Amino acid sequence: MRAEVPDLPLATLRGVGQVDLQNNIWTSACFVVALLAAGWRFALFGLLGAAVGTAAAWFLGAARESVTTGLEGFNGTLIGVALVLYFEARWITVLLVVVGAIMGSVLTSALKTLLGPHDLPGLTAPFCVVATIMVVGGPSYERVWRGHTLAVPPSATSPGTTVTFTDLWQGLLNGVGQIFFQGKWYVGLIFLIGLAIAGWRVALAAVASSAAGILVAVLLGAPAADIGAGLYGYNAVLTGIALCGTFVAPTTLGLLYALAGVVSATVLTAFVGHLFEPVGGHTLTWPFVLVTWIFLAAVPAFSGVRRAST
Amino acid sequence: MRAEVPDLPLATLRGVGQVDLQNNIWTSACFVVALLAAGWRFALFGLLGAAVGTAAAWFLGAARESVTTGLEGFNGTLIGVALVLYFEARWITVLLVVVGAIMGSVLTSALKTLLGPHDLPGLTAPFCVVATIMVVGGPSYERVWRGHTLAVPPSATSPGTTVTFTDLWQGLLNGVGQIFFQGKWYVGLIFLIGLAIAGWRVALAAVASSAAGILVAVLLGAPAADIGAGLYGYNAVLTGIALCGTFVAPTTLGLLYALAGVVSATVLTAFVGHLFEPVGGHTLTWPFVLVTWIFLAAVPAFSGVRRAST
Amino acid sequence: MRAEVPDLPLATLRGVGQVDLQNNIWTSACFVVALLAAGWRFALFGLLGAAVGTAAAWFLGAARESVTTGLEGFNGTLIGVALVLYFEARWITVLLVVVGAIMGSVLTSALKTLLGPHDLPGLTAPFCVVATIMVVGGPSYERVWRGHTLAVPPSATSPGTTVTFTDLWQGLLNGVGQIFFQGKWYVGLIFLIGLAIAGWRVALAAVASSAAGILVAVLLGAPAADIGAGLYGYNAVLTGIALCGTFVAPTTLGLLYALAGVVSATVLTAFVGHLFEPVGGHTLTWPFVLVTWIFLAAVPAFSGVRRAST
Repeated sequence: MRAEVPDLPLATLRGVGQVDLQNNIWTSACFVVALLAAGWRFALFGLLGAAVGTAAAWFLGAARESVTTGLEGFNGTLIGVALVLYFEARWITVLLVVVGAIMGSVLTSALKTLLGPHDLPGLTAPFCVVATIMVVGGPSYERVWRGHTLAVPPSATSPGTTVTFTDLWQGLLNGVGQIFFQGKWYVGLIFLIGLAIAGWRVALAAVASSAAGILVAVLLGAPAADIGAGLYGYNAVLTGIALCGTFVAPTTLGLLYALAGVVSATVLTAFVGHLFEPVGGHTLTWPFVLVTWIFLAAVPAFSGVRRAST
Repeated sequence: MRAEVPDLPLATLRGVGQVDLQNNIWTSACFVVALLAAGWRFALFGLLGAAVGTAAAWFLGAARESVTTGLEGFNGTLIGVALVLYFEARWITVLLVVVGAIMGSVLTSALKTLLGPHDLPGLTAPFCVVATIMVVGGPSYERVWRGHTLAVPPSATSPGTTVTFTDLWQGLLNGVGQIFFQGKWYVGLIFLIGLAIAGWRVALAAVASSAAGILVAVLLGAPAADIGAGLYGYNAVLTGIALCGTFVAPTTLGLLYALAGVVSATVLTAFVGHLFEPVGGHTLTWPFVLVTWIFLAAVPAFSGVRRAST
Repeated sequence: MRAEVPDLPLATLRGVGQVDLQNNIWTSACFVVALLAAGWRFALFGLLGAAVGTAAAWFLGAARESVTTGLEGFNGTLIGVALVLYFEARWITVLLVVVGAIMGSVLTSALKTLLGPHDLPGLTAPFCVVATIMVVGGPSYERVWRGHTLAVPPSATSPGTTVTFTDLWQGLLNGVGQIFFQGKWYVGLIFLIGLAIAGWRVALAAVASSAAGILVAVLLGAPAADIGAGLYGYNAVLTGIALCGTFVAPTTLGLLYALAGVVSATVLTAFVGHLFEPVGGHTLTWPFVLVTWIFLAAVPAFSGVRRAST
């Protein structure tokens, strides 16, 4: 059954919370506040992307439940936030977000067909694909890029691997904020409050995963400024939320399994991070997507862990 | 059931038309004429690739219908045309085309197994894989490359984004010709006549898609000379033919869906095009293959569009 | 049913022989001797990787047969050998091998789910993925890399394409040894003896494939020193063992099919080899994995070849 037009505004809003795998309207509202705290353009373009993605899926006839729970919009949210960050708030960016969010919607549905038989969720893969294409190609186009200098990771201006206490506590919060490309601690805090609204377990999983990510990064000798900016934590946070309770049952072995996933996501982030330095060191959510897919696909072969009932 | 040896010559010829998804002997003949107009070596190596691919599939025991309709040969056709363009008409090129076309045949069958459950066609993916491997590695080998200087896109010698009327009308026709790596307007015209022989709807879809591709490229500010050479049109043309009638039913919503696919293929071409500049700016048919797979895979999730009955 | 703890030591040992697709304890023992002949650190880290991979799979509850036959350990073996080669015998390398082998175990199980429906084995893909990630990212980390200069292929110091008799016979044996990253002819010989213990057909397939690999490389004009080091042979050897008897029935057409696979793997090695020059010109076993997957996936579409009964 198709969704109805009056369903779309709330569906769009839920598309903000679904970025963190939460189907909760108050969490979504809190996330919008966090984006506003980071800058109006992030909230505006994020909602634009969510709206276009949701509307495109509705127009083409996606399943009603998929639309109304925000599952058709969250990739659009991230596409909007990422593109306004890379290309600034201009009309050409609006156009790219619209095209990108439509492509993201079709990709979301394509992944349902391709991954469905393996019982794997599409996660933020459509966002990763669209954002990667745009970022790889954008700088070639004068009209798109317009003298914009390439972003650099924080470590470019503050090199060194000596981690301070400030790096640690800010990195803990920024690990939550960087899912939405935000590197200010209070923005990360508002996002964390949003997660706590959805449930204390989710918030706990997020903080613990962020801490684990920081620990692995410090052990590997990653740049301190990047750790402080949360660049080594956000893939860990998403992987932790996904593997700890959302898709895998939180048994003792399940928690160890989730921890292995969180460590893997951070190692992957660390080891491919320098490939993304020209765009600010943000690896999008590729490590989260790939590691979560692998860990979920492996579940049926392991008798010790099992999928969470949904 | 296996094909018989006397089936092979006609099957080879049909392998030329299947590059544009047409199972029509006169269309194929017209395409050979177009290749001859572009240069004898393109016709010769294209037919060589089609013949080797078809024969290898027959020898290994591919299904009869798949062989006789040219579906086992069209990747070989493109491999032959591409390699003679990159490595010139020499004996080592003959050897590479033979090896490449055999690899292409096995890949074609492998994709049947892997994509069959999802009801997705292999398209020109085998050609893309083989040609990418050869092009990435060829320049390392003195015997293969022999002082051949790397090709450059037309925009290298005529930079600028100011599109002239000549760019527009030649680009419209070259969008059809560049599927076979040809950038002369009259060659594109002969290919278009071949498509019209197969049916006016196909020809119309090709021209409309080529136009849409040009429009998107102009909007993004792509180099005018490359637009004029058809480099932004040919993936759009193939995507348009595939999504408009061939694999998706041409309802109103289906046509809009095809248009979204054509735009996506062009955006993808534009945004990855500069990665292919060292080999003349030709992205092979990767954008067409990837976009068409995604749009076809998404169909089951959308109640508004449906696959064409075949 | 789960494996028992007392099963693990023998399972670990079998994980060495399974690198070459052999489930044979004496072959495995012979391989360990070969690694010792190459240097204690290769034997130690190879066994460490096999042990961690096997133990992780057992702990998570992988199927008993999969654990006891060494199928959960062989990717760990290669991860251990590769990482000690790249990063030297240090504590950080031990840590990376442990993390890498656990990731390899999860990947092994994930591939069972994803490739199982297509009846494709995971082969050494988990090793390739983990090693690629570590090698791409390792040099960024002072603590991991520590002034280690990047390896270069033998051709960097001895350029030229004139193949001597020494290159030929040493290359024949090194083609067997390079599967384990070893380029000394007597080490390759011990590995070959290990294969002969498993069966003369396997040893014959290995030698014939190594020879075919050398022939293709010479024909393409590959650097003589790299041919002598076995860099063009080891993917051919693995592909030959896999396609000739192990997974495809060794009929006359089956042998030709295996030969086509061996040639394809060598062409692929040759054409992507220069991408791996910064890490010693070793393409890992990517060409073997990709070519074997494609050739096995194509079998159902060809009536002339069939899978070996297992």
